[in-house]
Amino acid sequence: MDHDTASRTTLIRSASDAGSRVFETILTRSPISRIDIARQTGLSQAAVTKAVAPLVAAGLVDAPPASHRDGTPGRPVSPVSIVLESMVMLGVKVNVDEVIAVATDLATTVLTSTRRALPADDPHSVIDAISDVVAELEQNLGLGASAIAGIGVSVSGDVDSSTGVVRESNIMGWADVPLGDLLQSRFAWPVTIENDVHALTIGEHWFGIGLGTASFAIVTIGRGIGSGLHLNGEVVSGAFGVSGEIGHLPLADPALVCPCGRRGCVEAAASTGAIEAAVSAALGRPVAIDEAVALAHAGDPEAESAFREAARLIGTAIATLVNLTGPELVIIGGEGVSDFDLFEKTLRDAFENHAFGAAVRCRIVTRPHTFEDWARGAAATAIQSLVR
Amino acid sequence: MDHDTASRTTLIRSASDAGSRVFETILTRSPISRIDIARQTGLSQAAVTKAVAPLVAAGLVDAPPASHRDGTPGRPVSPVSIVLESMVMLGVKVNVDEVIAVATDLATTVLTSTRRALPADDPHSVIDAISDVVAELEQNLGLGASAIAGIGVSVSGDVDSSTGVVRESNIMGWADVPLGDLLQSRFAWPVTIENDVHALTIGEHWFGIGLGTASFAIVTIGRGIGSGLHLNGEVVSGAFGVSGEIGHLPLADPALVCPCGRRGCVEAAASTGAIEAAVSAALGRPVAIDEAVALAHAGDPEAESAFREAARLIGTAIATLVNLTGPELVIIGGEGVSDFDLFEKTLRDAFENHAFGAAVRCRIVTRPHTFEDWARGAAATAIQSLVR
Repeated sequence: MDHDTASRTTLIRSASDAGSRVFETILTRSPISRIDIARQTGLSQAAVTKAVAPLVAAGLVDAPPASHRDGTPGRPVSPVSIVLESMVMLGVKVNVDEVIAVATDLATTVLTSTRRALPADDPHSVIDAISDVVAELEQNLGLGASAIAGIGVSVSGDVDSSTGVVRESNIMGWADVPLGDLLQSRFAWPVTIENDVHALTIGEHWFGIGLGTASFAIVTIGRGIGSGLHLNGEVVSGAFGVSGEIGHLPLADPALVCPCGRRGCVEAAASTGAIEAAVSAALGRPVAIDEAVALAHAGDPEAESAFREAARLIGTAIATLVNLTGPELVIIGGEGVSDFDLFEKTLRDAFENHAFGAAVRCRIVTRPHTFEDWARGAAATAIQSLVR
Repeated sequence: MDHDTASRTTLIRSASDAGSRVFETILTRSPISRIDIARQTGLSQAAVTKAVAPLVAAGLVDAPPASHRDGTPGRPVSPVSIVLESMVMLGVKVNVDEVIAVATDLATTVLTSTRRALPADDPHSVIDAISDVVAELEQNLGLGASAIAGIGVSVSGDVDSSTGVVRESNIMGWADVPLGDLLQSRFAWPVTIENDVHALTIGEHWFGIGLGTASFAIVTIGRGIGSGLHLNGEVVSGAFGVSGEIGHLPLADPALVCPCGRRGCVEAAASTGAIEAAVSAALGRPVAIDEAVALAHAGDPEAESAFREAARLIGTAIATLVNLTGPELVIIGGEGVSDFDLFEKTLRDAFENHAFGAAVRCRIVTRPHTFEDWARGAAATAIQSLVR
């Protein structure tokens, strides 16, 4: 960490509660006037001015001279802005077969990115791959003394972000892996570990859809099925680090055993792997997902039926989520979205059949998140843990 | 409304954002020092002092002279307190066969209560009954000029609290009843309409368990099955007024049609009515819930099986709620709790079978809420709508 980055990090971490809230407000709502910061935080304008000064001095916030540029009379407007390039954050998404890494500015805009195939799934192979991609990002950035201020790493499963332990990840085959500690010994900057869908939600909460929407859920479909919740303007993390586990709601046939060991989980019938298994069993030979998609598009009844059952369960699971938490918007993402035509009608029908009363008005949209977007979410968790 | 109550109401309703937050903090955390109010609200101490003054002048807040009563050195402590009796609130819980009404102070402590059997379930019979109980409460209170500042009425179902419309209440057999407008024409003070379990949750949020617990859910079992959520310190209301509809999660056999018209709802197999129907069908004669309980206690296999199936579904539904929202505590209430020995083991087993990872650490406790507690929840919604 270079001198500027270190002193900026210290300034943010040692800020008073008021100072933290002012920085968070500027970070997520730039450009913003001091009056609006006062309104957002409930602080007096004097307190805001006092909190902004050291941020400007440290180069984290830009405060151009007040102006009447738009010609309106009255008090001059003087919005302040985050200096996006004042810190570089790294984000890494761990997948079952590769790691994807990005370096971003303070709004998670990607500066450079890379990926590395995983030779194996064990924690040490993953840590080595993360070290490799981080070295590559540093080289790409071409920063003599590094301006990197932190790294966020996201993994599917039950992740305790407070201790950095991956308690249970079926996709990786991990249990109780102290990933945070293992990575911290390799890097000079703070390491943050988070569930991958939570990380995506934190990114949307601070730098995406959350800025204009009081309540939304992200549901991701594909190899894993997960969700993240943003309610009353806050991300729902779960008292014990578990929330949004829509893939493990017991809505499927109890005869189906999920890779997690529980019975009747949504994932056991609706994940990419479950679709592959259903089509393979019906056709009596191994069928990978690309072929299953092609077969369904060609009208093969067994493949169509497997997608229909997956869609019915996902739609039912979304109705369950909406009946309980009442978001105004559900965003479906994940790699499964690329074949959403195979899911859409059955999924929406199932949702409408089970949504209770006015909950049916919740909008359901798709939005393809690239794997880089997931890595940006991981970078957002690093930014958040710097501020909070 | 008498002169004092009218002027107090006007003061609260016309308060600035800072003023409202100060009043809410004193209301829910009395007694509290000005320093702690500043800490809670993020306001300066000067702003807190400015906001407290008119509340004291109006008799809503008590500010005794600063003292060193406990003998500690330094600045004297001068906590301020809400004047509990400065306003009277009414709360009414509408049940299928009766209305229960309370008059409370500003902490929902009951001053007087009454109930009235309903001759019929239609809205006009209910409104007449509410008028009767309100008149009785006024008489009991013995207030010459009424100090009543508002009334909250809670009903099971999909209730739009912003318009006061009961959109769907299966238990009452209502659809799109403008209960708020109908009642408002009878009363001088503001009328608030809310879903009954949301009202109970708002009461716990402000005056009960919510003060010490960041996240909890209330699950009520009995004639209806519902829940209320409190996450990140806030009640989850739902973007369209629907949330916590745990009774309408599609976890039961899809062959079962719920009174709401949907298939496979938890209520269709686990409500009091569903248990009665299952035991009646098995025994070939009508069996009411009291007899079903007695039969199950006596070891009748059909009755035991009906309670077991209900318990399995409720436990599975609680695991669903916990996997999605991750509260630290689930409180099971409702009239069904009186026979909880028939539910407990199967319910806890089902919860543990389906809780994902660390979510299993969520504590599940029972707490019998009397019908008066439900009416107190309705009074809490009236207090909340005065402040917000």
